Amino acid sequence: MQTSIVIMTVGNELLIGKILDTNSHWLCKRITELGGKITRIITVPDDVDEISSEIRRILHVKPDMIITVGGLGPTFDDKTFQAVAKALSRRLILNRTAFKMLLNRYEHLKRKGLIKDFKPTKERLKMAKLPAGSKPIANPVGTAPAIIYWKGRTCIVSLPGVPKEMKAIFNRTIAKIIVEKSPLIFSERNLFVKKLPESELAPFVEEAMQSVPSVYIKSHPKKVGKAYFIELHLSTFAPTPDEASDSLRRTYEIITRKIKDAGGEISSTFN
Amino acid sequence: MQTSIVIMTVGNELLIGKILDTNSHWLCKRITELGGKITRIITVPDDVDEISSEIRRILHVKPDMIITVGGLGPTFDDKTFQAVAKALSRRLILNRTAFKMLLNRYEHLKRKGLIKDFKPTKERLKMAKLPAGSKPIANPVGTAPAIIYWKGRTCIVSLPGVPKEMKAIFNRTIAKIIVEKSPLIFSERNLFVKKLPESELAPFVEEAMQSVPSVYIKSHPKKVGKAYFIELHLSTFAPTPDEASDSLRRTYEIITRKIKDAGGEISSTFN
Repeated sequence: MQTSIVIMTVGNELLIGKILDTNSHWLCKRITELGGKITRIITVPDDVDEISSEIRRILHVKPDMIITVGGLGPTFDDKTFQAVAKALSRRLILNRTAFKMLLNRYEHLKRKGLIKDFKPTKERLKMAKLPAGSKPIANPVGTAPAIIYWKGRTCIVSLPGVPKEMKAIFNRTIAKIIVEKSPLIFSERNLFVKKLPESELAPFVEEAMQSVPSVYIKSHPKKVGKAYFIELHLSTFAPTPDEASDSLRRTYEIITRKIKDAGGEISSTFN
Repeated sequence: MQTSIVIMTVGNELLIGKILDTNSHWLCKRITELGGKITRIITVPDDVDEISSEIRRILHVKPDMIITVGGLGPTFDDKTFQAVAKALSRRLILNRTAFKMLLNRYEHLKRKGLIKDFKPTKERLKMAKLPAGSKPIANPVGTAPAIIYWKGRTCIVSLPGVPKEMKAIFNRTIAKIIVEKSPLIFSERNLFVKKLPESELAPFVEEAMQSVPSVYIKSHPKKVGKAYFIELHLSTFAPTPDEASDSLRRTYEIITRKIKDAGGEISSTFN
């Protein structure tokens, strides 16, 4: 079984189309490489009730992991910890370790001359007020600590929304949790088909997937300049690299033979 | 009241991080400009049960509109019509108008020499098999027709996933439905703050929003080269352009005065 993961990105700026959500895309790519399986991406507004009710709903499905992204900063609209606490019916409490992380960060900023001094205002303390029972994770490149909270077998992770910070914390701390939970590796292969419309290719794709059920094939019609072609993306999750490449090779052979028999042309690049 | 809209993007390629979901970003931006309000973006896999159960769940919340994107093509993994039909407990039936749209399209492709002839294979007919009760919408730049289905007061729209096709159909047919439902217009303004960390800015943002509750302010910490600054994004929905610009101007005056009093610098660009 693959590790099932739900990604939740938080922020009005995503819902009004001001910001393109590259965070969930990066996470999907990384998690797939690590053998994990994303089952949903959900984007919610900066609203405690909306975030917490979605988290509760997702918890009912019992995924292995929920990753929230965004809403950990010092401003009033950073509401993720409050929402996680509400979803879990836990209180927010000032976490000593998280507070130390903040102190270290502000001392660092002071040494660099970026702030004058550290006053523990309510906005700053907010970043160290965590849902009771959660574990803070140091942010190596920013201020707001992330958190991990285990609810039964589901690991809830809250990461900051600044891409550099999100990536650094994911790579340092979260990636290994996913690898430990994931016994499978991901492998993929692309091919490009010319002179055959997608609707004629469709039955070949279906037959190839029936012959090798572990491989998923997706076709993407493309147009570059005046040239039409179909990109076929073959992907599989397998216990070993050998099994993965064997399945991909068998599928590749089946589908390329069918395409050639039907008069299609195949190349490994689209040029 | 603003028109509430849920966007659902469909495709394994999004969940494995192969494709960045620029479709939902474009829709969010366009819909916001038109006065609509996106309440969720949800990405689901190419799976009839997963798509249909999400649609059912969203229907319970009774949004004004649900827009699905992707999964309308001829291949086996294009499952959106099947899923919409299942969610609505309707059958899939061959729609005469949609079939004519396909015929016209394939005749066009034949004239251009892109296909030899039109055989109504099951893969092609699939694109004209619509949930009973839905209305096909012509695709001016591609093959698969889109659909509209009214379920009580909720308008369900299914658009193709090819960006050019999705945009063309949205602009030609869906935009005006949203405008008719939306009595409000959207307006926004940016400013850039230097020499003040986000945690010191946070209380000013909160106070300004209390003074002018119709304006939403979001702060985005940024770093360009070695320069740190905070982007403040002011936005509002209002019945008239005058009311919108008046609210934005009042908020802008309140917040810039506070920032200057605290020693911050303001500019309208980040250079």
